[in-house]
Amino acid sequence: MALPAPLTGVVPPVCTPLTADREVDVPSLLRLVDHLVAGGVDGLFVLGSTSEVAYLTDRQRLLVTETVAGHVAGRLPVLAGAIDMSTPRVLDHVAAVTAAGADAVVVTAPFYARTHPAEIARHYRLVAARSTVPVIAYDIPVAVHTKLPAPLLLELAADGVLAGLKDSSGDLAGFREVVTGARALPGFSVLTGSELLVDAALALGAHGVVPGLGNVDPHGYVRLHRLFRAGDLAAARAEQERLCTLFGMVTVGDPARMGPGSAALGAFKTALHLRGVIACPVTAAPQIPLTTEETERVAKFLSGAGLL
Amino acid sequence: MALPAPLTGVVPPVCTPLTADREVDVPSLLRLVDHLVAGGVDGLFVLGSTSEVAYLTDRQRLLVTETVAGHVAGRLPVLAGAIDMSTPRVLDHVAAVTAAGADAVVVTAPFYARTHPAEIARHYRLVAARSTVPVIAYDIPVAVHTKLPAPLLLELAADGVLAGLKDSSGDLAGFREVVTGARALPGFSVLTGSELLVDAALALGAHGVVPGLGNVDPHGYVRLHRLFRAGDLAAARAEQERLCTLFGMVTVGDPARMGPGSAALGAFKTALHLRGVIACPVTAAPQIPLTTEETERVAKFLSGAGLL
Amino acid sequence: MALPAPLTGVVPPVCTPLTADREVDVPSLLRLVDHLVAGGVDGLFVLGSTSEVAYLTDRQRLLVTETVAGHVAGRLPVLAGAIDMSTPRVLDHVAAVTAAGADAVVVTAPFYARTHPAEIARHYRLVAARSTVPVIAYDIPVAVHTKLPAPLLLELAADGVLAGLKDSSGDLAGFREVVTGARALPGFSVLTGSELLVDAALALGAHGVVPGLGNVDPHGYVRLHRLFRAGDLAAARAEQERLCTLFGMVTVGDPARMGPGSAALGAFKTALHLRGVIACPVTAAPQIPLTTEETERVAKFLSGAGLL
Amino acid sequence: MALPAPLTGVVPPVCTPLTADREVDVPSLLRLVDHLVAGGVDGLFVLGSTSEVAYLTDRQRLLVTETVAGHVAGRLPVLAGAIDMSTPRVLDHVAAVTAAGADAVVVTAPFYARTHPAEIARHYRLVAARSTVPVIAYDIPVAVHTKLPAPLLLELAADGVLAGLKDSSGDLAGFREVVTGARALPGFSVLTGSELLVDAALALGAHGVVPGLGNVDPHGYVRLHRLFRAGDLAAARAEQERLCTLFGMVTVGDPARMGPGSAALGAFKTALHLRGVIACPVTAAPQIPLTTEETERVAKFLSGAGLL
Repeated sequence: MALPAPLTGVVPPVCTPLTADREVDVPSLLRLVDHLVAGGVDGLFVLGSTSEVAYLTDRQRLLVTETVAGHVAGRLPVLAGAIDMSTPRVLDHVAAVTAAGADAVVVTAPFYARTHPAEIARHYRLVAARSTVPVIAYDIPVAVHTKLPAPLLLELAADGVLAGLKDSSGDLAGFREVVTGARALPGFSVLTGSELLVDAALALGAHGVVPGLGNVDPHGYVRLHRLFRAGDLAAARAEQERLCTLFGMVTVGDPARMGPGSAALGAFKTALHLRGVIACPVTAAPQIPLTTEETERVAKFLSGAGLL
Repeated sequence: MALPAPLTGVVPPVCTPLTADREVDVPSLLRLVDHLVAGGVDGLFVLGSTSEVAYLTDRQRLLVTETVAGHVAGRLPVLAGAIDMSTPRVLDHVAAVTAAGADAVVVTAPFYARTHPAEIARHYRLVAARSTVPVIAYDIPVAVHTKLPAPLLLELAADGVLAGLKDSSGDLAGFREVVTGARALPGFSVLTGSELLVDAALALGAHGVVPGLGNVDPHGYVRLHRLFRAGDLAAARAEQERLCTLFGMVTVGDPARMGPGSAALGAFKTALHLRGVIACPVTAAPQIPLTTEETERVAKFLSGAGLL
Repeated sequence: MALPAPLTGVVPPVCTPLTADREVDVPSLLRLVDHLVAGGVDGLFVLGSTSEVAYLTDRQRLLVTETVAGHVAGRLPVLAGAIDMSTPRVLDHVAAVTAAGADAVVVTAPFYARTHPAEIARHYRLVAARSTVPVIAYDIPVAVHTKLPAPLLLELAADGVLAGLKDSSGDLAGFREVVTGARALPGFSVLTGSELLVDAALALGAHGVVPGLGNVDPHGYVRLHRLFRAGDLAAARAEQERLCTLFGMVTVGDPARMGPGSAALGAFKTALHLRGVIACPVTAAPQIPLTTEETERVAKFLSGAGLL
Repeated sequence: MALPAPLTGVVPPVCTPLTADREVDVPSLLRLVDHLVAGGVDGLFVLGSTSEVAYLTDRQRLLVTETVAGHVAGRLPVLAGAIDMSTPRVLDHVAAVTAAGADAVVVTAPFYARTHPAEIARHYRLVAARSTVPVIAYDIPVAVHTKLPAPLLLELAADGVLAGLKDSSGDLAGFREVVTGARALPGFSVLTGSELLVDAALALGAHGVVPGLGNVDPHGYVRLHRLFRAGDLAAARAEQERLCTLFGMVTVGDPARMGPGSAALGAFKTALHLRGVIACPVTAAPQIPLTTEETERVAKFLSGAGLL
C-alpha cells in the first residue's frame, strides 16, 4: 500500500519474538501483530531498534518482514528498518525489505565509521535515489553517535529525499525545529520515538509516535493519541503518566549485570510473555536475560497498570 | 595455514581498491597484495576499518577475502574482519570469511545497541565457540564506542577464547596492561594499531603492528620493526618519526567538507594511486573524495618521504 | 525575603553587562534589572551560566549580587549561583552571596574532578547543612558533564535538602520524572531552563522557567507563562514559536571562529545593547566578540520579532 | 628561582595533606615535601589535580603555596596550578600563587563554558601577558573536556606564550607531535603526566614526568628517570612495570560506592599515611573515604613493592 502522507498516529516498533534457540518465532510474531492491530494502531514498524534489528541476521530480517507484511496484507502500512553501517550495505537491506513487502524504509545516519553532515546528506540522497518506497530518517544518536541536524532534515525533506522523521534523539527542542519547519511541507511526517513525551510531542505538532512500550500496551498509546486529538489534554496527560509508570519496567534488570538494552528489551518481551502474546521472553545473543525475581517485578508493573 | 602463535611483525590492514563505479577492483587488489608482500610484511588483515569494511556489501567482503586468500595461497597468514553489530550477525561473517580462506577472524565488541562488559564477554565466548579459526579481539572505541577493558581481555585470553588483540584504542597504558599480563600466555598475540607509536609499543613488549599507513609504505614499517628487533632503538625512532611525518597526509582533506574517515582513507588511496599501485583512488559511498589540490598535497607528502 | 515555596513563573538568569575594559557595568546592570522587572518577571537569577558566572572574579560576583539584591530590595526573590568545582569552594560562594543579599543559592554537581552519585548527594547535603537560605539544584550536564538523576533529586527533595530544581539538561523525560515525583512535595519548585520548550514543560507540570532569552524579551516569556496559566494553549504555543524564532540569533556567530557560548552570550548582549538596555555588548575573556555583520544579523532577528 | 629551561626530570604533583576537619595539615605537608626532596625529585608541582586543587578554597591554596615555596626556599623550582574556569579567574590565581612564591604557573584550557580553539589560544595569550612567571599548559581533557591540539601548543610555544606542557591527556601520539615539534624550541619543556608510560614518553623525547604516584614512591620515579638517562632501557622498563603494579592501588576503592578520583586520591593519601609521611589519610569533601578493608588492600600493594 502507499504510505499515507503524512503518516499519523501510533506506529509501534514491533518486537521480534524468538524461540528458545533464538530463531524467529513466527506464530508468536503473528499473535503480536494481531495484538497490535486489535489495539488500534495506525501502522507497524518492523526491524527497528526495539525489534532487535541489530541482532537479527539477514535471513531473520527477511523472514520478519515477509511474515508481517504478508499477514497485514495492506490493512496497515508496514515500515521496515534498513539499518546498517553505510550506503552500500543499507541499499542491500532496502532492496530486501522492499521485495518482502515493506511500504517504506527507515534509515539512520551511517555509523561505525565517523561521519560528517555532508556525508550524511549524501547517504540519504543516494538511498532515496535507489529506493522504490519512501525513505524515513531515523534519528537515534544513542545508537549511531551522530545527531541529525534539523536544518539538514528540512533541506532533505524540501528536496523530496525524505518522507518523514522518526526521532529517538530525546532532543525535543530539535524535534520542534523540524515540526515547525515541516509545516510548509504537507506530506512530510514527523514522528517521535520518545514514548514518555507523546503528549508533549503532539502538542508541539508531531504527527504521531513510535513507542517501544506500545508492544506491551498498544491500547494505552492509541487512547493517549485519541484523547489528544479529541482535545482532552488533561486526560491525555493522565494516560501518558500511567504509561510512564508502566515504563518503569525497563529498570528492573540489574545494571551491574546487564546493559540498558538487555534490560529494556528483556522487560518488554517478558511483559508480552506474561500477557500471553508471545511464547518465550528470550532476547538475542549476547543480551543477558532477566532473572525470575526480575520477571516478578515486571509482572508487578503489569498488575499495577491493570494489564495482568 | 595455521596462525603463528604468537603472530608477530607487520600485518597491514589491506585497503580495498574500488573501480570508478565502486566495485572491488580485483587487479588493483592483487597488485596491492604484491606490493605489501614485496615490502616484507608478516601477514595481511583484510576487512578491517582501513579496508572500508563498514562500506563493503557482503558480496564484496566475500570477493575480497577469496581474492586475497587465494592469491597469498598460504605464503602469509590472512586475517579477516568479521565486523558487525552483534553475535548472530558476526557469526554469519565468521562462517563466510572462513569458508573464503581466512586464517583468523578479527572481531569488535557489539555496537549500535549499547553494551555491557558481561555482554561483551558472552559475545566473544559465543563467537569463539562457533569459529573454526582463532579469534582476535579488535579494540576500536572510536568506531564501536566501547573500550575493551584489559582485565576482560586477559580473562578471555587465559580461557583460550581469544588468540590475540588488535588495539586501536590509542590507550597505550591499557595496552601495556594487556602486554604485561599476557606474558604468562605464550601464544597470545598483542598487536598495536597505533601506527604513530610502533616503537613505543614494541618497547613495551608488543608483538607487532597493524598500520593503516603500511599500505602506502610497507617497507618503512618493516624496516622500523627490524631495526627495533635488532636493538637499534635510535634508528627505529628516526624511522618512526619519518613515518609520522608521512602520516600528516591524513590532514589534507578539508574538515569543513568531510569527516576524518574520508580524509584518511582518501589520502591512503590517493597515495597508492599516485605510487601506481591501484588504478583509482575512489572511496566507497557516502565518503567525500579529495580535490585536485588536496591530491597535490598528498603527492608532496610522498615526495618528502622519497616515495614518488 | 523568603523564597516562595514553590517558586513559580518567569525567573530570568540575569546577564552581566560589562564595560569595554571588562568591569561590571553597574548602571547598565540596574537598567537591565528595571527592564526585567518592567517585563513582569517573578524573580531574578544572578550568577548563572547566562550571567557569565564562569568568567566573573569573586569580586565581580559579589558586586553583581549586592547591586541586584540592593536594587530589588525585596520586591522579587533574588537567586544567586554558587558555581564552583567542589563543596568547600561552593560553600565560600554560598557565604558570600548570602551575605550580599541572595534569597536562595543555585548549585551544580561538582565538576573538574570526576564525580559519582554518592559524592553528588554528599555535596548537596553538606551545602544545605551550611546554607542559611534554600538550595536549588542546577542540572546542566553540558557544563559539568554529569546528569543529576531524577531519583537522587527526589530523595534530596524529600529529605529537605533541596528546595527546587533548575533543569538545563535538555532531557524532558527526566524532567517529567522529577515533576511527577515532586507532586507529593508541595513546596519543591521545578523550573525548566529549556527556553524553547516552556509550553511543553508547563504542560507537564513545571512551576516556571529560567530563560536566558528572557533578558532580551522578558515580556514574551511573561506573556507565554500567563497564556498557559489562563488555559489558552494555542496562544501559548504561538508565543513560544515566536520566541523560538527569536532564539535563532544564537546561531549568527560563526562556529568556525567561536564556541557556542561566545555566540549565544554575544547575541543576547548585542540584542540588549541594540535595544538600548546596556551600554556595551562586550563579553568576558576569552570569549570572541561578534563582528559588525553578525551584529546586523542580530538586529534583523529583533526587527523580525518587533523588538527594535 | 628561575625555572630551568627546559625543566627536566621528576616533578611530582604534591598531595595536600588534610587534618580530620579538612584543614591543610602544614606539618604533614612539610614532611611530604622533605620526603619528595629526599627522593631526589627535580621540582615540585603544587595545586595540581593530585593536590585536590579542585577542592581547596582560595585560602587553602594560598597556604599550600606559601608553605611549600617557603620551605623549599629556592632549592628546587616550585610550579603552582592556577586552575579555574576562565581567564579572569585564572588571572586572580596567577597573581596569588606568584605572590606566594611560585616559580611558574600551570594553566588548563577554560572549562564549564564550552570553548573553542580560538578562545583557548586567546586565554593563554592573555594569561601569559599578565603573568610575571613562565606559563605551562596543562592538558587534562578528563577534567576540562577539551583536548589541547598539538599545532595550537606549538604555535603558542613558538610565540613565547608557553614555557612548557604538562600532558595528562593519555594521547601519546599527540604528545609525540608536540615533543617532535618542540625540538626547534630549545627552552620549551614537554612533561608527561602519564605515570604508567614514563619510559615510553622519555623514549619519544619527553623532558620529564609529573607522576601522581610519585608522592608514594618518589625514589622509584627518580630511579626510573636516571636509568633511562643512563641508557639502561631494560632496567628502566622493569622499574616502570614495578610502578605500574604499585599503581594498582587506585582500583581498591569500590566503584559502586565512589568515583575514580576518590579512589585514586584516597589510595595515595592512605599509602602516605601508612608509610608515616602524613598524619591523616582524609580527602576533601565530597569525596568518599576508603574503608578499613580497602586500606588493608592498599597496604598490601605497599608491602608488595617493598615500601612498608
